[in-house]
Amino acid sequence: MYQERIQRILSYMKKTGIDAALITQPKHVYYLTGFLTNPHERFLGLVIPAAGEAALIVPALDREAAMEASSIKNIWTHSDTDNPYDVLKQALPAGLKTLGLEKGHMTVERFEAMGAVVAADSYVDVEEPLREMRLIKSADEVARLKRAVKLVEEALEAVVGGIVPGVTEAEVVAEMEYQMKRLGAEGPAFSTMVLAGEKSALPHGTPGSRQVRPGDLLLFDIGVQNDGYVSDITRTFAVGDISEQLKEIYETVLAANEAAIAQVRPGVTFAHLDQTARRVIADKGYGEYFIHRLGHGLGMDVHEYPSIHGQNQEVLRPGMVFTIEPGIYLPGVGGVRIEDDVLVTEDGCEVLSQYPKALRVIGQ
Amino acid sequence: MYQERIQRILSYMKKTGIDAALITQPKHVYYLTGFLTNPHERFLGLVIPAAGEAALIVPALDREAAMEASSIKNIWTHSDTDNPYDVLKQALPAGLKTLGLEKGHMTVERFEAMGAVVAADSYVDVEEPLREMRLIKSADEVARLKRAVKLVEEALEAVVGGIVPGVTEAEVVAEMEYQMKRLGAEGPAFSTMVLAGEKSALPHGTPGSRQVRPGDLLLFDIGVQNDGYVSDITRTFAVGDISEQLKEIYETVLAANEAAIAQVRPGVTFAHLDQTARRVIADKGYGEYFIHRLGHGLGMDVHEYPSIHGQNQEVLRPGMVFTIEPGIYLPGVGGVRIEDDVLVTEDGCEVLSQYPKALRVIGQ
Repeated sequence: MYQERIQRILSYMKKTGIDAALITQPKHVYYLTGFLTNPHERFLGLVIPAAGEAALIVPALDREAAMEASSIKNIWTHSDTDNPYDVLKQALPAGLKTLGLEKGHMTVERFEAMGAVVAADSYVDVEEPLREMRLIKSADEVARLKRAVKLVEEALEAVVGGIVPGVTEAEVVAEMEYQMKRLGAEGPAFSTMVLAGEKSALPHGTPGSRQVRPGDLLLFDIGVQNDGYVSDITRTFAVGDISEQLKEIYETVLAANEAAIAQVRPGVTFAHLDQTARRVIADKGYGEYFIHRLGHGLGMDVHEYPSIHGQNQEVLRPGMVFTIEPGIYLPGVGGVRIEDDVLVTEDGCEVLSQYPKALRVIGQ
Repeated sequence: MYQERIQRILSYMKKTGIDAALITQPKHVYYLTGFLTNPHERFLGLVIPAAGEAALIVPALDREAAMEASSIKNIWTHSDTDNPYDVLKQALPAGLKTLGLEKGHMTVERFEAMGAVVAADSYVDVEEPLREMRLIKSADEVARLKRAVKLVEEALEAVVGGIVPGVTEAEVVAEMEYQMKRLGAEGPAFSTMVLAGEKSALPHGTPGSRQVRPGDLLLFDIGVQNDGYVSDITRTFAVGDISEQLKEIYETVLAANEAAIAQVRPGVTFAHLDQTARRVIADKGYGEYFIHRLGHGLGMDVHEYPSIHGQNQEVLRPGMVFTIEPGIYLPGVGGVRIEDDVLVTEDGCEVLSQYPKALRVIGQ
């Protein structure tokens, strides 16, 4: 698997005249070697020369772990007092002209520090083949995504029934993340979001001491990380009796979610999906309260390529996985978002998230 | 407070001839405005012109939260279909020559995309005054750090007594993070590390299904995030009876930790601290098993400036906060690390972490 992925990079390099590629994003190093690490500010790099043996450069303290996990066994190390770019220079082929980089990951600072040691004639982006490979999920990747979705749904179900008025958002978050871990997930894929009442109208709100009260909407935007892959779902619940207005926005968002999902199949554009959901919401008079894109790609990252918005004319292909998450946010009142994870199949789609979407009343 | 910090940036800009500074690192935007957000891949930027009003550019869906939290009320927004650099260009002063950036944060990709719209003559790094300000903690920052340390110590104490042989590393992690949240922390500051037995010899190991067994060392490298600031401590415990060799490396690491802390005062160098700890370990014959630097700065980030290693000739000053974390790692056998968080005072230091360090036997 790893050899095949590196082969794809090599084909791209050959086609575009790149002498060597330097992969520095930890998830891409994982994707190409099987070795996953968070190097923090230390240098991590996979060197793929157009000809010759690939090399993995790791901080000295990661050597043992890399030897164990990496499919590339040619491992070079640097200590905290080394200049890692000296090591990189040795690992790169002599007479290097064009070096491929992940420009979306490397900082300007590192680029300048590297450039002072490694004097290539030109630096080009090498993320395209990685993005393309990651965009179309393999059966193995789909299996991992399904497992991540199942874990978060089980965690949600374990929490929702026990919610009683008076509990705070932060307490519900603690319980959510405890359940994720108890069920075997590595951890939350992002800051677990539980927002109550008027706070549910903040798409990026922070859970805190706000207590859950009857009449509130209670929004969960949650996901887990597992085996290198993530889930990301949103469900919104009613706490006891809620107002007619809140019920209306719930039904509107649900209709938008379902309308967009019904359009998912190879050949349609992302723009069409976004427009479909947006039209349902606009038709009910809430257009100005749907203030973000419809969704985003999902895989090793919570937010990955592509971006699902009204201007994206890219066409859906089998194997793509992304979120569909329309929302309506009434400032000071409350918000609803319903988010599913969807896989494009040969003739339609498979909705990976199976947690029920009919409005559910909790906390009674 | 925010005004004073921005003033420091302005002084630096004046001194170095920068026409405008663009701050994009979310923690720096927080440090300078009070508004904390994770914009994911969306653009977030604080524009500080040498003359005129500062502006905060946020994704549209963050507008309400920014209005509430930010001390800068001149807020510009962009939606997912806008080119955020068009908005940036409008917010920058006309006739811009030199733009200050955080080169350690901006990616090459963003730099190129921005450069295509915002045509400054030169781009210079503006992190120096931020690094310098962040290096010397204010009383308010020290109070937040102390709170973060206290939270993680209380969480550790709530977990350690209940550990019994047979529990897995992953289960202990779940319980640790549950206790962090229960006690009121926003969450772990980094992936909670609990490593048992031979896995404690991996400085960057990943907790998993390894069960805790009598005779193991059990290593906790843990921290919480709270109010924008973090803690980071390590304690290693004995599970039942451990070998004489493991006891010896424990006592050696403890002696190294204490020897380095005893040297902390204004005027000594970071190199001296590292060398002090390293000498204690080398004298016992374990020099080759202490395979990382002594520590790192601590504040809003878990790993921040400075780096505490044997070549750093920078001198300690009152208000600096950093970790001291010597370790010995015997591959296949076990490892010990003991990590404290230390504040440099006028005449010595205050050790912020107070969790006991004498070898403690648990799981009996």
